[in-house]
Amino acid sequence: MTDSNLNIDRAALDSLVLKRFFYAQSFSIYNGVAGLYDFGPTGAALQQNLISMWRQHFVIEEDMLEVDCSIMTPAEVLKTSGHVEKFADWMCKDTKDGSVVRADHLVEAVLEARLEGDILARKMAGVSINNEAGPVAVAKPDAKKNKKKGGPIAATKLEDSVIEEFKFILAQIDNYDGQGLADLITKYDIRNPDTGNTVTAPAMFNLMFESSIGPSGNLKGYLRPETAQGQFVNFSRLLEFNNQKMPFASAMVGRSFRNEIAPRQGLLRVREFTMAEVEHYVDPKNKDHPRFGEVAHIELPLLPSKVQLDGKTAPTMMRIGDAVASGIVDNQTLGYFLARIYLYLMAVGIKHELLRFRQHLPNEMAHYATDCWDAEIKTSHGWIECVGCADRSAFDLTKHSDYTKEKLCVRESLPEPLVTEKLVCETNSKIFGPKLKRAAKPVQKYLESLSDVDLTAIQSNLSKNGKATVFLSSTPVDGEYEITPDMVTIETRTITEHVREYTPNVIEPSFGVGRILYSLLEHSFSVRDDDERKVFFSFKPAVAPIKCLVLPLCSHASFAKPLQDVARRLRTGGVPARVDDASAAKIGRRYARNDELGTPFAITVDFQTADDGTVTLRERDTTKQIRASIEEIVELVKCLVNGSTSWDDVLSKHPLVNTSASDSTA
Amino acid sequence: MTDSNLNIDRAALDSLVLKRFFYAQSFSIYNGVAGLYDFGPTGAALQQNLISMWRQHFVIEEDMLEVDCSIMTPAEVLKTSGHVEKFADWMCKDTKDGSVVRADHLVEAVLEARLEGDILARKMAGVSINNEAGPVAVAKPDAKKNKKKGGPIAATKLEDSVIEEFKFILAQIDNYDGQGLADLITKYDIRNPDTGNTVTAPAMFNLMFESSIGPSGNLKGYLRPETAQGQFVNFSRLLEFNNQKMPFASAMVGRSFRNEIAPRQGLLRVREFTMAEVEHYVDPKNKDHPRFGEVAHIELPLLPSKVQLDGKTAPTMMRIGDAVASGIVDNQTLGYFLARIYLYLMAVGIKHELLRFRQHLPNEMAHYATDCWDAEIKTSHGWIECVGCADRSAFDLTKHSDYTKEKLCVRESLPEPLVTEKLVCETNSKIFGPKLKRAAKPVQKYLESLSDVDLTAIQSNLSKNGKATVFLSSTPVDGEYEITPDMVTIETRTITEHVREYTPNVIEPSFGVGRILYSLLEHSFSVRDDDERKVFFSFKPAVAPIKCLVLPLCSHASFAKPLQDVARRLRTGGVPARVDDASAAKIGRRYARNDELGTPFAITVDFQTADDGTVTLRERDTTKQIRASIEEIVELVKCLVNGSTSWDDVLSKHPLVNTSASDSTA
Repeated sequence: MTDSNLNIDRAALDSLVLKRFFYAQSFSIYNGVAGLYDFGPTGAALQQNLISMWRQHFVIEEDMLEVDCSIMTPAEVLKTSGHVEKFADWMCKDTKDGSVVRADHLVEAVLEARLEGDILARKMAGVSINNEAGPVAVAKPDAKKNKKKGGPIAATKLEDSVIEEFKFILAQIDNYDGQGLADLITKYDIRNPDTGNTVTAPAMFNLMFESSIGPSGNLKGYLRPETAQGQFVNFSRLLEFNNQKMPFASAMVGRSFRNEIAPRQGLLRVREFTMAEVEHYVDPKNKDHPRFGEVAHIELPLLPSKVQLDGKTAPTMMRIGDAVASGIVDNQTLGYFLARIYLYLMAVGIKHELLRFRQHLPNEMAHYATDCWDAEIKTSHGWIECVGCADRSAFDLTKHSDYTKEKLCVRESLPEPLVTEKLVCETNSKIFGPKLKRAAKPVQKYLESLSDVDLTAIQSNLSKNGKATVFLSSTPVDGEYEITPDMVTIETRTITEHVREYTPNVIEPSFGVGRILYSLLEHSFSVRDDDERKVFFSFKPAVAPIKCLVLPLCSHASFAKPLQDVARRLRTGGVPARVDDASAAKIGRRYARNDELGTPFAITVDFQTADDGTVTLRERDTTKQIRASIEEIVELVKCLVNGSTSWDDVLSKHPLVNTSASDSTA
Repeated sequence: MTDSNLNIDRAALDSLVLKRFFYAQSFSIYNGVAGLYDFGPTGAALQQNLISMWRQHFVIEEDMLEVDCSIMTPAEVLKTSGHVEKFADWMCKDTKDGSVVRADHLVEAVLEARLEGDILARKMAGVSINNEAGPVAVAKPDAKKNKKKGGPIAATKLEDSVIEEFKFILAQIDNYDGQGLADLITKYDIRNPDTGNTVTAPAMFNLMFESSIGPSGNLKGYLRPETAQGQFVNFSRLLEFNNQKMPFASAMVGRSFRNEIAPRQGLLRVREFTMAEVEHYVDPKNKDHPRFGEVAHIELPLLPSKVQLDGKTAPTMMRIGDAVASGIVDNQTLGYFLARIYLYLMAVGIKHELLRFRQHLPNEMAHYATDCWDAEIKTSHGWIECVGCADRSAFDLTKHSDYTKEKLCVRESLPEPLVTEKLVCETNSKIFGPKLKRAAKPVQKYLESLSDVDLTAIQSNLSKNGKATVFLSSTPVDGEYEITPDMVTIETRTITEHVREYTPNVIEPSFGVGRILYSLLEHSFSVRDDDERKVFFSFKPAVAPIKCLVLPLCSHASFAKPLQDVARRLRTGGVPARVDDASAAKIGRRYARNDELGTPFAITVDFQTADDGTVTLRERDTTKQIRASIEEIVELVKCLVNGSTSWDDVLSKHPLVNTSASDSTA
């Protein structure tokens, strides 16, 4: 595996991104807003192409039910989903300047700075140190720590016991709640390292943007933090639309919002972003996938949790069929989606050697998740989680169903009725009620909930001792209650079920479109061998924002008509084309600046065009050119763009044109 | 012009829309939220197809610069654009139950109810009435009044003078501000007609959803109410991207938000909606459009403001070339877009006879707008504004530029330097300042701002009378000031300009995607001649949510493989296909229920398929069928969907299959 692409000149990339308006900070003439970005013509088209390919790859080819739901979401829905309570960070305010910091990052940064100060002090004192690497945490390998700097390092020696304390705290920093963090801040006099001021006790800061729906001010709403909930609450309609057939998937592409405390790293941590999410509903008793056989042979770079716990970070190439068979990936459906995600990322142009599938560590997953893998893409910012793929079990549907009392489940006719024998306890209401009074109902409910084993025990007590004792634990009826044989009848019944009712499990592949886009920019950023100032994006035709450049060799009146003719033919045929007829710039300069947009093809009108109706076609990566009639070249470009032919194919059928002069900027 | 489509059974339409999940109220298992809708698989695909066609028709064919900007917008931006101040309605609260009403609607409803009560009273008393039609307002013809009902009509006779007062108020109800409405409410003891309770004085209710950006709580943000501002604030980047060439257009498709007081009429007045907006930047001195010639011959149903002011509502079919030439439409660019909007609406399937272009009345337009036309589509809710097309002059760019001090303008090298002679007034600072003291600066500024004519007058006064008088009106330097010849030099100077700098005007076609979608549902809603229970959507293939149904004649094991084969071929070819193999339903029933989704084509696998590899192809509107090999039928469907062939074409080349049995539900 090579890390070749990681040596990119990020400053040059950032500058090109801005210069060619892939994206820029939003409202920049108003000094901008952190974490908000506007996509320019190139970036918006790139994003749109990523989405179109996603739709073709997932929604159309897999026959998913794509929906488009509201962004504004009433608080009740997000309370039920757990976001109001848990989608939050602990914040402290600087007591003097009011600036805000994340409490865990603050503690982490300050304690790490003190440990570094200690190392420095010991070094200065010539003392040997046990562990120069500082605190050791298992956590995610390679993941960059997201922390605020802990301020200037003061060379202050610490007691050995204090060092141990600090290391212990840092190793489990994620486990502290607000009070825990508050205690640490007080105990160690932790202050804002930027100002030296004390900070307030940590307060919860929910990461959802809050608003109010309607004029009354009584209906609180949030901007959705993900596109999943809209799909879950429509589950019954979707199942109905699918003629009650399982398994099936819904999907949504749309904007989501997270009011980040500290947005950073450009498109990688933003406050508003486009997601594409699939919710695949599957029978919890059978997570096989009908098309798994089609992908089983595909080799994926997998980094299982067990390998990470052993302290290793190198992914293993493994056939997904083997990974599922050996239990490394929990089930076929999850494995199927990992393979489909891989194929999608390859299709858009992510570099194979800069992609890995990392399994979540046990303590990283939500308690309800069965298994979870992230597709991580390596960029100059480190390994970035770009797609998550989790088996969320029945958690979400159960939560919404419990709260709303609306059934969100599948009813399946059993091929054969299911006949079972079961012990049943019936109460004799004439005696049962008067004897137990207000405890009658709870005791009855308790008896009905008992398993065959427990009922057998009671039955045996009743027949042996003439009584049995029941313990209730919930107030106000907690206590012991005596049951006598006249109060109940316990006997075996035959139960016949014709329908099986179950809550589906959800497998959720979730794509961060902006993160994939940014990674693709890095992976496509290229430099010409002959001139390092000549940079370009080597986008595949399918994702390239503009597919074809149309330009005249130089400024000449006779070029205007064929130029417009070519551009019109391309555009009417659905091929985004850009004319660059700025006459002042030489053709080499114009090729170069359109290479910067990642435009894969260029059609040039020259003096021969007027004579014989031919034009040249240039390809960006090879800078090679061929010549043919306008009609033929336009058709060729259409085929190159829709993928029905390749540039190698074209070169094998057309002689090269000498281009030594035209691609020079001199 | 026929109104045939207006006789649709809206209850049947609404029921079908819900049954086939085109859209439904969002969060319905949580009892729903007014004005928020979720698009199901059919509605989302329909919307997506409308957007794709829009992109092809506008962005690609016109080479527009599509951008994708932030929804969350800092308050400063929307203050500058005028939305914080003006994007609001006056609201009253019921003093007892707290319910909220729009102040103008309240006054209107109550006064109209009293006028009706008067008519009733006079009728009961046998008195003849002058004007039974009630209040007359010019306003929009046919526009449904958006009003809350004025409560039960009490037959109470009014004084003739009171009737005149009420009519006068109603005719200009839009002209009252908050205080004006408050006065009316007090004077006429206007109460909430639903409860009889008094209401609070009107308060401003801004229609933007408000939120807070970041953790500090200090940065107020709003959800954008339109997609225009993101484009305006990026003007300079876009002009740069376009190599400084004018004219050009930017475009955006995206979600916008309006916190409506009273959402109603389904998709027509909602709180969250998808817009598609074009901002075309044009030289204010030359609003010709290079491609106007291509559309000049197109006839549009125009309803100019002059016709409306004459009390007429019938549109006139007029060539857009003539409408621009005669000044009915202000300029070529505006006319060009009206024609392009027309072509788009026809392409998606809006009925020609249910479309009109209505010009805004002078008092309806914003003060800065030069001209404005709405494409209105007739539905069972009346004429609905679905596309606005306004010439917004330089208003928006000027506002943002003035506030931010960032230039949002075009600098154009003049082909020849512009040489002009101009009278210039220079002040003699040694005398001017000491004489005029603190008024010196304002007087100097005033003199510099004067035209040649005014300066000539001053020059003449100075030479004739030895002095001239200047009047300043702004405090604190308001008053008369005397100028003497020694204080100033007024003389002709030659000024040479090489660059012309100007702020472009903006022509803004703005599409409400949801409204077009709803209108299209009404215009496509059809009933079979032979059975009025059989309803279907007659979508064109290009907009149809699902392009092709794939189904077996009946349940048989041999059908499974060819069925999956056909579906796979279609989907891989980018054609959304749906399999309906629910074996319990007869084929006629399955055709019918997929007709309800508006699926134009159906491929049926039958017993002959196993023998000779052929399948049948059925078209929805004609219900006619042909038969050919799987390969040929799949290719035919692709061509029918991309528009390269038509069903008539297909029928002319393939013999019909007898279908009398298969389309019956019996």
